Amino acid sequence: MTLKTYRSIFKWGDKREQKLDKGIINLIKSRFAFTNEDFEKKYLYGDDEVKLDYKCKLDDKIVDKFIQISGKENISKDDYSRASHAFGKYYTDILKLRKGEIITPPDLVIYPRNDEEIVEILIICNEEKIAITPFGGQSSVTRGMETQKGGISLNLTKHFDNIIQVNEINSTVKVQSGIFGPKLEDHLNSFKEGYTCGHFPQSFEYSTVGGWIAARGAGQASTGYGKIEDMVLAMKVITPGGVIETKDYPATAQAWDLNKIFIGSEGALGVITEATLKIRKYRPDNTSYGSFIFKDFESAVNAMRQIMQEGIGLPHLFRISDPEETDIAFKTSDFDNSLSDKFLKTIGYKEGNRCLMFVSIEGNKAYTKFVKSKIRKIARKNSSFYLGVKPVTNWLKQRYSSAYLRDPLMDIGIMTDTLETSVSWENLVPLWQSVRKYLRSRKKTVAMVHISHVYENGANLYFIFLSPMEKGNEMEDYVNYHKGIIDTIQANNGSLSHHHGIGRALSPWLRSEIGKESLELLQAIKKHLDPNGIMNPGCLGLY
Amino acid sequence: MTLKTYRSIFKWGDKREQKLDKGIINLIKSRFAFTNEDFEKKYLYGDDEVKLDYKCKLDDKIVDKFIQISGKENISKDDYSRASHAFGKYYTDILKLRKGEIITPPDLVIYPRNDEEIVEILIICNEEKIAITPFGGQSSVTRGMETQKGGISLNLTKHFDNIIQVNEINSTVKVQSGIFGPKLEDHLNSFKEGYTCGHFPQSFEYSTVGGWIAARGAGQASTGYGKIEDMVLAMKVITPGGVIETKDYPATAQAWDLNKIFIGSEGALGVITEATLKIRKYRPDNTSYGSFIFKDFESAVNAMRQIMQEGIGLPHLFRISDPEETDIAFKTSDFDNSLSDKFLKTIGYKEGNRCLMFVSIEGNKAYTKFVKSKIRKIARKNSSFYLGVKPVTNWLKQRYSSAYLRDPLMDIGIMTDTLETSVSWENLVPLWQSVRKYLRSRKKTVAMVHISHVYENGANLYFIFLSPMEKGNEMEDYVNYHKGIIDTIQANNGSLSHHHGIGRALSPWLRSEIGKESLELLQAIKKHLDPNGIMNPGCLGLY
Repeated sequence: MTLKTYRSIFKWGDKREQKLDKGIINLIKSRFAFTNEDFEKKYLYGDDEVKLDYKCKLDDKIVDKFIQISGKENISKDDYSRASHAFGKYYTDILKLRKGEIITPPDLVIYPRNDEEIVEILIICNEEKIAITPFGGQSSVTRGMETQKGGISLNLTKHFDNIIQVNEINSTVKVQSGIFGPKLEDHLNSFKEGYTCGHFPQSFEYSTVGGWIAARGAGQASTGYGKIEDMVLAMKVITPGGVIETKDYPATAQAWDLNKIFIGSEGALGVITEATLKIRKYRPDNTSYGSFIFKDFESAVNAMRQIMQEGIGLPHLFRISDPEETDIAFKTSDFDNSLSDKFLKTIGYKEGNRCLMFVSIEGNKAYTKFVKSKIRKIARKNSSFYLGVKPVTNWLKQRYSSAYLRDPLMDIGIMTDTLETSVSWENLVPLWQSVRKYLRSRKKTVAMVHISHVYENGANLYFIFLSPMEKGNEMEDYVNYHKGIIDTIQANNGSLSHHHGIGRALSPWLRSEIGKESLELLQAIKKHLDPNGIMNPGCLGLY
Repeated sequence: MTLKTYRSIFKWGDKREQKLDKGIINLIKSRFAFTNEDFEKKYLYGDDEVKLDYKCKLDDKIVDKFIQISGKENISKDDYSRASHAFGKYYTDILKLRKGEIITPPDLVIYPRNDEEIVEILIICNEEKIAITPFGGQSSVTRGMETQKGGISLNLTKHFDNIIQVNEINSTVKVQSGIFGPKLEDHLNSFKEGYTCGHFPQSFEYSTVGGWIAARGAGQASTGYGKIEDMVLAMKVITPGGVIETKDYPATAQAWDLNKIFIGSEGALGVITEATLKIRKYRPDNTSYGSFIFKDFESAVNAMRQIMQEGIGLPHLFRISDPEETDIAFKTSDFDNSLSDKFLKTIGYKEGNRCLMFVSIEGNKAYTKFVKSKIRKIARKNSSFYLGVKPVTNWLKQRYSSAYLRDPLMDIGIMTDTLETSVSWENLVPLWQSVRKYLRSRKKTVAMVHISHVYENGANLYFIFLSPMEKGNEMEDYVNYHKGIIDTIQANNGSLSHHHGIGRALSPWLRSEIGKESLELLQAIKKHLDPNGIMNPGCLGLY
């Protein structure tokens, strides 16, 4: 295996080879009738050396201009650099990389050193109609980073990864957009009065502030801390039409909120270079945790809704696993068929119906205890059984790593993806039922669902599925199956996305979702800021 | 006095004559050297019958079209109707009405009956380039409702004042935009499980949901419940460029948030006809109240900031009165020089420095008690003295009526206005000092300041001033003084507005505040939705 393989590009996590543990192996054996042999066969392993059939299409003169702006050392046009900037982490992105099918790589990768360079690059690209894709942690799971028209991949992770200021009085941090989650969080934690950003998406280890904002993401503690749109006070965005900079007021009534136009813009309007975010006190010792088991999904959802609407303060992490996800969690741990498990079954928490709920509350010590006690009370009224602290703290230990299992699963020919939606309370259970029914209509499918971001008025649903690939037809197979899921979500009053964004994977549904007039409004804003359509063209269906 | 006077138009509240109470009379006497005689002289009383010098400029053919659409009974073009739709409640609006100077009244007032009629009216107005001003409670204090180009005043309070649906599961209410605060709130309260919208601007009694959204308002309990932008889940807006309708998802990542373009649009983009708002449980018996006195403004602000940042849950109402406002509160009540007052002075809470803080916490009974106990603890650490429940509950009894004092004050030749800004914590005290210095640089000026909307990252400052008019030159005098205030706010890092909006009074500062590029972005959005500039032209400085 050479160093510069396709595999080295698509691999998640710290690029180490992840292993499937015994629990998952047993699950796959039992549900998909896999034999030991099936675990040995590698499929589309992607260990060839990267070679592009498509040369850089830019004039040398243009490339020289970019070199003058950002320096030779900050520009790459070798095959491997371009290949490794061609996609995000969507299922079909990975399939294409595994197959070595990179049809529209960027022509050039630029690592700009400052705002002024980005302005200059945008001016040239605007004049020459060269596409630009802002590049952060590359964790898009919506084809949001596919360089559909080649052009420039503008990688901000090299020179735009600095913390500009922590303001302890205002409780804010001003950062450059290319900073990764751990660097930001470690810095905030390191203060004498420790701080946290409170934003922990599953991609946390490999995503940047700019990406969080561009994709309108949510972290695992969003029920308490809010989505990224609730955390951004000010931004700087460089667009082909000029630089937009907002101020860090706590709130205003100065016409409409321009921050909100760039949060969720997915690189299609401009390059986010700076942001001022809220921070909170970091006091992990104060956090209260709790785990509950409910008799069925409906009663867990009822308890969750009552907790959100009761006016007792909010939990930060708040999750429900549906029966299949709960069963799998039990089966893949040592809990299944333990004495405790038998006891739970005896008192009415039956396999196939029971649901896990996890909760954590952050803040002042007395506050977290208070809120937990109130949550326990409401959970109890909804016929739950309290399982203590350990299930949720154990879950937290592997909070980011389950995403990294995609690689070893695809290695053995298993298709796997995650989708998510948001929905009002009254539509939540019907939506869950309908999508599950669709997911399970495919033979040999594991479908795990959870709720992980909760509001007074509804919640998200997060779907994970695993199913053996239709080998040889894996792309079309996936696209068709995925289409059915989105159609089902849309037909059942769910949003196209709660926190992954739209990218190119969901853009075909955007018009029917938001309506012709709303899509035209998006397009008009795009047209004003990016008249030549150079910013991430095709993302959000906007050109 | 005839019925149809200018006075009957500008008078606030329930149109009864408000009286100045003894406390205010004494304040005016002592600070402005007013004699009893001065209280008898009426200035610009506005009791002439309304007569307009400007006839309806619309062709009879066009008027006939509107009659065909909305019916004769829903169209007015008499002088009094047009005059009473020409302005909001800004200080200069009132001055103009008192002087009978109505130069650009609307040509016609239409009370549309449904969305379809509004669509038809907009089509005609767009073709004929006739201005439209959406009309709700008329409480704008920023010249936001001035019918600068005449045209149509579209009054939504007659037929668009219905509650469409209360959804107890989703915890939402869907309403038409022309509904007034009390009608909405009474309906929500009336449910067996009572509900509240939690939005109580000082204009509550005479403002509508559409106005709250258009002006991006905030209510007195906004520290807990948020501003109106935090309450709106979905909207319907009819624009000349089409109808935009959003859905009531709790949150999404479907490109950027289109609701946020219409919240704060001040009628300049379209007519908001419907909105889905969050509601909360109404449990007034559970509310905890507290009042504190601090030794000075700085320590009160420090306590307030610590309370917001400590992670103990949030108060709903949260206010600090600065020393001058605190002294006036004491002087205009029976408290001044009482035994309690003497005691406070003895223990270090001195006149001229001391500051009142009010707090209320809503929600679950145990929660409100818990949060109050934690707030008391932080307040105590900042050298405050607890004054019990009564000062805040007394204040709440007159929470809306102080605005209605403008009329009797102007009657005796006193200029009075309120301005507000938002500011980060680190800039709050310097901004307060600078604006106070400017306000007091005018001879004979009472300047009361409070903080009334609080965030983790800063707060608003609300300025009230009273000063004898420069009679005969009252308009120019006001405009100059007002300009100095805004200039001072801007030079000291305050926003142009926290919840009043921009209207026409503040639009001259908007470009320097948000920057050329941001203003052009607002203008581009306006241009797309309202290509002929018919929607509230001139508001926000947009045409």
